[in-house]
Amino acid sequence: MQAPIKLALSQLNYKIGDFDANKAKIINEIKKAAENHVDLIIFSELAICGYPPLDMLTREEFVRKAIDCMHEIAKHCQTVTAIVGGPSINPGSKGKQLFNSAWLLSDGDARPVVHKTLLPTYDVFDEYRYFQPNQDFNVISFKGHRIAITICEDIWDDRPIENAFDRNHLYTLSPMQKLAALRPTFAINIAASPFSYHQHEIRKQVVCKKAAQYQIPVFYVNQTGANTELIFDGGSMVISPAGEVMHRLGFFKEETFYTKFNEPATPNKSEEKPSEIELIYQALVTGVRDYFNKSSLKKALVGLSGGIDSALTAAIAVAALGKENVHGILMPSQYSSDHSVTDARDLAENLGMSYEIIPIKDIVLQFDFALQNSFSGRESDITEENIQARIRGTLLMAYSNKFGNILLNTSNKSEAAVGYGTLYGDMNGGLSVLGDVYKTRVFEMCRFLNRNEEIIPENTISKPPSAELRPDQKDSDSLPEYDLLDAILFRYIEQNRSAKEIVSEGFDQNTVLKTIQMVNRNEHKRFQAPPVLRVSGKAFGFGRRMPLVARY
Amino acid sequence: MQAPIKLALSQLNYKIGDFDANKAKIINEIKKAAENHVDLIIFSELAICGYPPLDMLTREEFVRKAIDCMHEIAKHCQTVTAIVGGPSINPGSKGKQLFNSAWLLSDGDARPVVHKTLLPTYDVFDEYRYFQPNQDFNVISFKGHRIAITICEDIWDDRPIENAFDRNHLYTLSPMQKLAALRPTFAINIAASPFSYHQHEIRKQVVCKKAAQYQIPVFYVNQTGANTELIFDGGSMVISPAGEVMHRLGFFKEETFYTKFNEPATPNKSEEKPSEIELIYQALVTGVRDYFNKSSLKKALVGLSGGIDSALTAAIAVAALGKENVHGILMPSQYSSDHSVTDARDLAENLGMSYEIIPIKDIVLQFDFALQNSFSGRESDITEENIQARIRGTLLMAYSNKFGNILLNTSNKSEAAVGYGTLYGDMNGGLSVLGDVYKTRVFEMCRFLNRNEEIIPENTISKPPSAELRPDQKDSDSLPEYDLLDAILFRYIEQNRSAKEIVSEGFDQNTVLKTIQMVNRNEHKRFQAPPVLRVSGKAFGFGRRMPLVARY
Repeated sequence: MQAPIKLALSQLNYKIGDFDANKAKIINEIKKAAENHVDLIIFSELAICGYPPLDMLTREEFVRKAIDCMHEIAKHCQTVTAIVGGPSINPGSKGKQLFNSAWLLSDGDARPVVHKTLLPTYDVFDEYRYFQPNQDFNVISFKGHRIAITICEDIWDDRPIENAFDRNHLYTLSPMQKLAALRPTFAINIAASPFSYHQHEIRKQVVCKKAAQYQIPVFYVNQTGANTELIFDGGSMVISPAGEVMHRLGFFKEETFYTKFNEPATPNKSEEKPSEIELIYQALVTGVRDYFNKSSLKKALVGLSGGIDSALTAAIAVAALGKENVHGILMPSQYSSDHSVTDARDLAENLGMSYEIIPIKDIVLQFDFALQNSFSGRESDITEENIQARIRGTLLMAYSNKFGNILLNTSNKSEAAVGYGTLYGDMNGGLSVLGDVYKTRVFEMCRFLNRNEEIIPENTISKPPSAELRPDQKDSDSLPEYDLLDAILFRYIEQNRSAKEIVSEGFDQNTVLKTIQMVNRNEHKRFQAPPVLRVSGKAFGFGRRMPLVARY
Repeated sequence: MQAPIKLALSQLNYKIGDFDANKAKIINEIKKAAENHVDLIIFSELAICGYPPLDMLTREEFVRKAIDCMHEIAKHCQTVTAIVGGPSINPGSKGKQLFNSAWLLSDGDARPVVHKTLLPTYDVFDEYRYFQPNQDFNVISFKGHRIAITICEDIWDDRPIENAFDRNHLYTLSPMQKLAALRPTFAINIAASPFSYHQHEIRKQVVCKKAAQYQIPVFYVNQTGANTELIFDGGSMVISPAGEVMHRLGFFKEETFYTKFNEPATPNKSEEKPSEIELIYQALVTGVRDYFNKSSLKKALVGLSGGIDSALTAAIAVAALGKENVHGILMPSQYSSDHSVTDARDLAENLGMSYEIIPIKDIVLQFDFALQNSFSGRESDITEENIQARIRGTLLMAYSNKFGNILLNTSNKSEAAVGYGTLYGDMNGGLSVLGDVYKTRVFEMCRFLNRNEEIIPENTISKPPSAELRPDQKDSDSLPEYDLLDAILFRYIEQNRSAKEIVSEGFDQNTVLKTIQMVNRNEHKRFQAPPVLRVSGKAFGFGRRMPLVARY
């Protein structure tokens, strides 16, 4: 048996394209590791440039900067060796220009030593758009050890499936199988694995399964923090050759963990495990915070209707940005109930955020007047409801333009799915906070927030949901009850099941068909929606690409 | 030499997911071909389901329907054999679920005979998201001939490049080289190759080069018509073994061409070739027409400002949908010049379309009044300009909601690039008609339309561009002159060049940096823009994927 070596797993939060900041963070951890006599420090996938860099990878300047940074960081790797994820140039004359690589930084020098083989190209991932897949497998020699390095998806050659038509084996080869044949001492996986409320458990199972299958310890290093839609939850792990989690790093925070290989240890069974709803909440807070911080923005704006979606959005914004950085505007119309204003006030006061009231009635009348000739003889319909929503959207954007507060969108996933919202009205905003959270989950999260004290006013939670765009309107007038709606939507969107399959589970056929039709008919609205913080396995946005002009 | 066989190249317009309509079209051409004693009729790539089907391919139901249709069509293939593009199921237990296949329909039976090898996964293409690449190469025996069948990208293993960092050889193998080694009699390529004003000539060169390189005749069958952003121009070809175009089918129209192989013929040198600006114009008309037809929509709405962009958008809409289906609304404010109303009227009258006038002044005042407390003590700024644009956007959407006319967006590519437009205001619309056409091209296209008679009012073309959102405003107050701006944008966006490279071509450094900064800072606006009809090699939208939160 070789002498133990000291390892550091460094789970950091990177900003896309911010090479100076990313480099400084990495160097800082390398210096601390050197002081602590660490032999090998491990950073995550594409750490140098942030994930996902998207089409920035097609710019030569961008790739050169990433590579230059590797060499600069390497100057700090004298006693300590580092593994850092970053792009590298394909030296061949054929195939894509780039590899997605693990760079080895040691003795002041940097070189890409392993390239990613399995390039996820589904859901939110487009890696084959940029990278040439690796086909050579080697272990890395380090202080008498033989290390098998893989990059994220490389250990996902078989996977659990949601739907019979999905495949367990998306890929035709298994990098871990190839590497295991080379008899490595231990394995490292560097990842950029985004959060979803299913994924974080599945990920643990997949990594543990691989460790146990090949009886090899695995050091798994993920990143943390959010880049627009994608939220990385961290949760890096040390896995024993028996497939047990020996240590798990924190969720949604930067952390570097020092450990030794190979010293006897016992698995950490007492791991603190937040509930699913708490993890989703933490993910959303992280998503909002990083959207603002990484864009050098400070202040948010929320239109407060007295309803539950805007209340929860405001609460998340306050948790992410501080109460002094969140402003609310209440915009009652003639159809607003008395409680909508008092509920919104109560919320703002509970949260300690500022707010103001701008009634819209007179602007509504002015629009009616301007349109009276055009609309003469026509009945009132959804047009007039949308005008109210668009007046509110215009007032919010005016405030945003004047004071620089970024408007947060308050639509939930159920509404976004069925098109229950006004484009250029309440669908406005720079970021959709709840766009991947079904309405039933919105209720659940509010109850979670209220577990110790009332933050979301009780009346906001208990009253029947309403858009209040005409007298006595209720969501349930035009939509199925949310329990039922969300159950159908989950099967159609996340599980990708057909109407027939959903009906065969016992759902009413008309309700299923009507719901699916609403989803399909509203692709054009979602096309113009703000980016959505992704917390599920299938969020609206760039992970779900449906044609607009098509027969569904 | 074998006896001549009679071939049909069938260039049709398919709607995504409309299996009944696509099947009926294909059967109709097969019946006509049978009556004309055709031996082999060829349809384009993924003809059965339309291109691009996107994530509809992840639905089992969708794929099953496509396959069922192949078998139904095959019943009509008794004397005639057909090649039809469609998905097929990967029979292996590993790799992606689907192949992108050429199906052979003969003697009443259908089977996939060739799978696509090179899966374009760049720009607007995501084929590796869905398909497993083929690795087996065989020719198809047919009436004593040996046919090499390839699918679109399969003949693009090397390509011209726009940028030094791009690669000629994106792929590591050449299907045509593999197939040529099997000594085929002739080659067929079935394609779904979308229009761009460069692409149609490059495509001809690439196909001709392959024919000449392997000295083999090529029958190239593309599709026509538009599916949301992508516009297929047709232009299918018969290429001689010398690499000469023997015949080219029409642009932007359905056509089936009968020909014989192998009878002596002379190349068609007298081919009618529309100018580049005319092709772009035809592409846009096709794009608008198919967006409406394929969505079962009839009527369009355009906000007429008296400016050149809305004028050209209206002219294209009238050409696509008929003057009786296009309505204009003029919405003058206190800052509108007199000529803006008269120019817009002149345009509507030239085009014979209906229009009405809704002044916005009083609504503006009502917004000012509603916001006076919030904004007290603040100077007027871009906020007030945006309010005007959003009032107009709200009026247009109100008309759209009430009467069902779909609002056409009038932003051009120059504006979209630098963010010179109001989100939820003049950026509204179901479809962006000119979003891939630079301002200088907008002028050029208007002059083209006016070549015989005045359609776009001369004053609209000759006056200095202005948004008219404050007194005496001109676009050139805040933007470089359009000739210069567009030249920089073209290099940055289409050619993917860096600031440094552009400056080294002789452009002023400050102007270049300022322009690029404006492009980068407005990713968040374009994220929420309508789908853009794509006519260039790099349009905004799903072909250009840039992170929102990032350091550029």
